[in-house]
Amino acid sequence: MYARRAERLAPTLPGSVPAGTIGFDSGHAFPGVLPDLTREAEVALSHYRAETLQYAPRTGLPDLRAWIAGYMNVGVTPDHILVTNGAKHALELVCRLLLDEGDTVVVTAPTYFSAIPIIRSFGATFVEVPQDADGLDVAALDRLTVTPKFIYNVPDFHNPTGITMPIERRQALITYAERRGIVVVEDSPYREVRFEGALPPSLRALGGDTVIHLGTFSKLMAPGLRVGWAAASPALIARMAQLKTDAGSCPLTQRVILEFLTAGRLPSHILRVQEAYRSNRDHMVAALARDMPEATYDRPHGGYYVWLTLPESTNGDTVAACAAANGVAIIAGSRFYANPGPKHHVRLAFSHATHQEIDEGVRGVAEAFRAAQ
Amino acid sequence: MYARRAERLAPTLPGSVPAGTIGFDSGHAFPGVLPDLTREAEVALSHYRAETLQYAPRTGLPDLRAWIAGYMNVGVTPDHILVTNGAKHALELVCRLLLDEGDTVVVTAPTYFSAIPIIRSFGATFVEVPQDADGLDVAALDRLTVTPKFIYNVPDFHNPTGITMPIERRQALITYAERRGIVVVEDSPYREVRFEGALPPSLRALGGDTVIHLGTFSKLMAPGLRVGWAAASPALIARMAQLKTDAGSCPLTQRVILEFLTAGRLPSHILRVQEAYRSNRDHMVAALARDMPEATYDRPHGGYYVWLTLPESTNGDTVAACAAANGVAIIAGSRFYANPGPKHHVRLAFSHATHQEIDEGVRGVAEAFRAAQ
Repeated sequence: MYARRAERLAPTLPGSVPAGTIGFDSGHAFPGVLPDLTREAEVALSHYRAETLQYAPRTGLPDLRAWIAGYMNVGVTPDHILVTNGAKHALELVCRLLLDEGDTVVVTAPTYFSAIPIIRSFGATFVEVPQDADGLDVAALDRLTVTPKFIYNVPDFHNPTGITMPIERRQALITYAERRGIVVVEDSPYREVRFEGALPPSLRALGGDTVIHLGTFSKLMAPGLRVGWAAASPALIARMAQLKTDAGSCPLTQRVILEFLTAGRLPSHILRVQEAYRSNRDHMVAALARDMPEATYDRPHGGYYVWLTLPESTNGDTVAACAAANGVAIIAGSRFYANPGPKHHVRLAFSHATHQEIDEGVRGVAEAFRAAQ
Repeated sequence: MYARRAERLAPTLPGSVPAGTIGFDSGHAFPGVLPDLTREAEVALSHYRAETLQYAPRTGLPDLRAWIAGYMNVGVTPDHILVTNGAKHALELVCRLLLDEGDTVVVTAPTYFSAIPIIRSFGATFVEVPQDADGLDVAALDRLTVTPKFIYNVPDFHNPTGITMPIERRQALITYAERRGIVVVEDSPYREVRFEGALPPSLRALGGDTVIHLGTFSKLMAPGLRVGWAAASPALIARMAQLKTDAGSCPLTQRVILEFLTAGRLPSHILRVQEAYRSNRDHMVAALARDMPEATYDRPHGGYYVWLTLPESTNGDTVAACAAANGVAIIAGSRFYANPGPKHHVRLAFSHATHQEIDEGVRGVAEAFRAAQ
């Protein structure tokens, strides 16, 4: 009865997490930095009621497309922007646009775990390429025996590893993709969640229409708004909009975002976000150094996560299960590999927890690690 | 470069309608019945901030699933409900769940035009069955030589024809579907937009898990909220949730809806909606009788639309083009056929226009009709 693509996915959902669990698992925002949007909603639902309660243009509110184009500052116009129901929806539209059954997609090993079922559900086969300290190993692409439909990557504060590609590596990836005529899908939710150092230009800035860039307001403002975007050539955006079968993304949340942006609240909000997550990162790294010296990791310069490498004999699935029993939710590293991969990693999110929860949670993970030996 | 499914769809969007155009084309709500949701949003963004600005459960807010299950009142539980980004998104998820390339889907001729590209984009072939005064001709199903993956229908105030299936016809459809093991997809946005008479039970009430029911708050409250649902067996809902790659529908709009519902505002709002659209229907039918006696139609007892049958020699595409030139947007009947069909129909929406616009607009359509002879 089910379609082949549906058969590829397990019909189970992640189980609900018991109340009181310390959440190192998800990309939830820190509650203390969720902005007050009551004024914005009041304006959106009174002054703009005839806009916010009707269907919106399928490509997004024109003012928001214009704001995003200006914000990206990489030579794109509003016609390059499609507003979506979050960045994952944008990735799904890219898959609907490009993927036929049996196509190949390149991802890093490891890669963002939520991208895997989306791409898989369109019938694609994964080719994984390794990362080194500079991110995606472009030299490994030259050894591929198939031509992928696209290369999916998170170049800024990579999820889960935290690695940022320096400009030379980005340039090498773009050169490779341009020469071979392969699309690069740049997923960059964490670009502004930066704790120190400068970031190199985005892949989109370097590669132009070779790159489909995915952005989101989830990390800029709040995940619950469910507004993201794709930036690509106007021709691709027009086709993706045709495949966007939702009668337009929610105009209410789009207008709430626009009111927040045009009131000039974003810069100070980003500073607050950076400060909160930098502090959480520092606290988690200190707790790991204190309580879990067996784990190695690169201290992330941005993003939400620490990617722990455990001794090779350790099974991260077991560590995650034991941690859950200890009241700490983490994600086993095995879930970040599109094809079966190494087991001795786990990902810890420091975004959502308080300092006290970080201390308790890391102790719980350390105990789980020892129990799993 | 594009996937086959993407190649199937034209990359163009509907052109923007010039300002001042009278809108008989879309399913926009009447501006005068858009509810004031400022208080609901204020509560959602203050009292429920930690819920409304974080990711929501992928299946929807538990309270909203429970409300929907109770509202449907057909023996379903919250586990039967999946909250979606509007009913079209629910239909897309049904397609993702069930359709492989080359599968067959049954639709009425004519059918809801927005359902056509969604289903087509999944590689399905359409088999059209006619309607009579009681709706979908179930006897015609018995003459099918292929087994369809599902039967898509709008049984309440059918879009575009306005026909409502009486209980006997519904029962016949369910009996056929149960005997053959075929899923029925019941799309019912207009059930509460009823001007007179009682409605028979929904297909879901009669057919249980044979039926996937699609509902929406677009016509109950406002289209801009972009919240709908699917009701199906818990097993199907779990699989559809897995295919729902949006990290949960927007919790802010879900909570705004819940606040509206739990404040008891829905019943009086539905009465206002019914009164406004009944009055618009009456006004449009009177204008048609006065200015366009050449057109025949059934006076709809609910919904948003009048489906005009023009003399067979008339080309509805030309009428729509001439009407647009006269400043009136209508939709050519040909767009409501999945396979090439008759041309001598047009659909007029009375939902969005004022009485004065209805008078002017019908005159414009009548002139367009004469110009197209």
